[in-house]
Amino acid sequence: MDSELFEIETGDQPTITDITALVEHFCTDRGDGLVSVFVPHATAGLAVIETGAGSDQDLLKAIDQLLPTHHAHWRHDHGSPGHGRDHVMPALVSPSLTVPVIDGRLQLGTWQSITLVDPNVDNPHRSVRVSFVPG
Amino acid sequence: MDSELFEIETGDQPTITDITALVEHFCTDRGDGLVSVFVPHATAGLAVIETGAGSDQDLLKAIDQLLPTHHAHWRHDHGSPGHGRDHVMPALVSPSLTVPVIDGRLQLGTWQSITLVDPNVDNPHRSVRVSFVPG
Amino acid sequence: MDSELFEIETGDQPTITDITALVEHFCTDRGDGLVSVFVPHATAGLAVIETGAGSDQDLLKAIDQLLPTHHAHWRHDHGSPGHGRDHVMPALVSPSLTVPVIDGRLQLGTWQSITLVDPNVDNPHRSVRVSFVPG
Repeated sequence: MDSELFEIETGDQPTITDITALVEHFCTDRGDGLVSVFVPHATAGLAVIETGAGSDQDLLKAIDQLLPTHHAHWRHDHGSPGHGRDHVMPALVSPSLTVPVIDGRLQLGTWQSITLVDPNVDNPHRSVRVSFVPG
Repeated sequence: MDSELFEIETGDQPTITDITALVEHFCTDRGDGLVSVFVPHATAGLAVIETGAGSDQDLLKAIDQLLPTHHAHWRHDHGSPGHGRDHVMPALVSPSLTVPVIDGRLQLGTWQSITLVDPNVDNPHRSVRVSFVPG
Repeated sequence: MDSELFEIETGDQPTITDITALVEHFCTDRGDGLVSVFVPHATAGLAVIETGAGSDQDLLKAIDQLLPTHHAHWRHDHGSPGHGRDHVMPALVSPSLTVPVIDGRLQLGTWQSITLVDPNVDNPHRSVRVSFVPG
């Protein structure tokens, strides 16, 4: 299985990073199959959303509202404010995603992008593993 | 990889559509492997839930409560009320799903159905891609 | 495709059960590929989170807050309190997960564990299907 680990800089603010081009490039010339995208971090996830039209900021806002950032709310309460809820987020925004590929092309819809969701402010460097399983 | 795009009519109301039979039929006679179900839309997702006993309506209610429909809440604020939150939903209810298949049969539990979750009232026609990777 | 159903005892309280060792053992000596973990139950899901540092209890708390347990809230209202919302949970905490495997080893991050999330108090015995697709 071809598999590669990519480094992503997400900085010290909550971010949604569009990684579609990276995954798309990885799949070029691979024919048909499934691409697996996996984030090997306990405080980040993957979402397939539209980017550039406000929905990325909307998602960060929704995460803040669904999972409050203040320490007192969570047992896991070390690190910067938000670290406890960052550890709960991957249960809802999974670190694992598969996307069908045909003739080396991701079968995403027109408005879909693959994004790395990283609310964590303490870890500016992230990795994403991309793997291809021929079908 | 065998892969097919199916058209689903979801109408102009928020809906949960049971697509188990469609996926099951696609897998018949294919032996063992993984079936990938993928929705190429930025305002729909897939959920594996029980249908016909109230949980489908319960899920639509939960989505309304977790992600409010009113425009003022979201940056992405064009379209019908709810469009902004519809674009956030796929981060929580993913458009991608894989299910193990053995001897051409989906390995779902007794009460599990594969459903297309479409809160979007502006897009009555949807597609679902079903792909089979032999194991 | 090699696939096996494992029995897990989750008892009569809401639980997060770490099943990483089980999945890891299943993948040993299998080379490269994708492992599929699938829970054939309509009231349980899978989450990749850190365990043993409070985040497991934090996740159960978050589920209680996002999806209230009282019957009156839900149409699906038989069984013990919480049963209705237990049926909604798998839309957010999916019963399906894939993880890349290289040289027989799960490519999880240092703090990631694969967990079975079972808020259901009425069903103490659960199954988890683990399947390996060579890449």
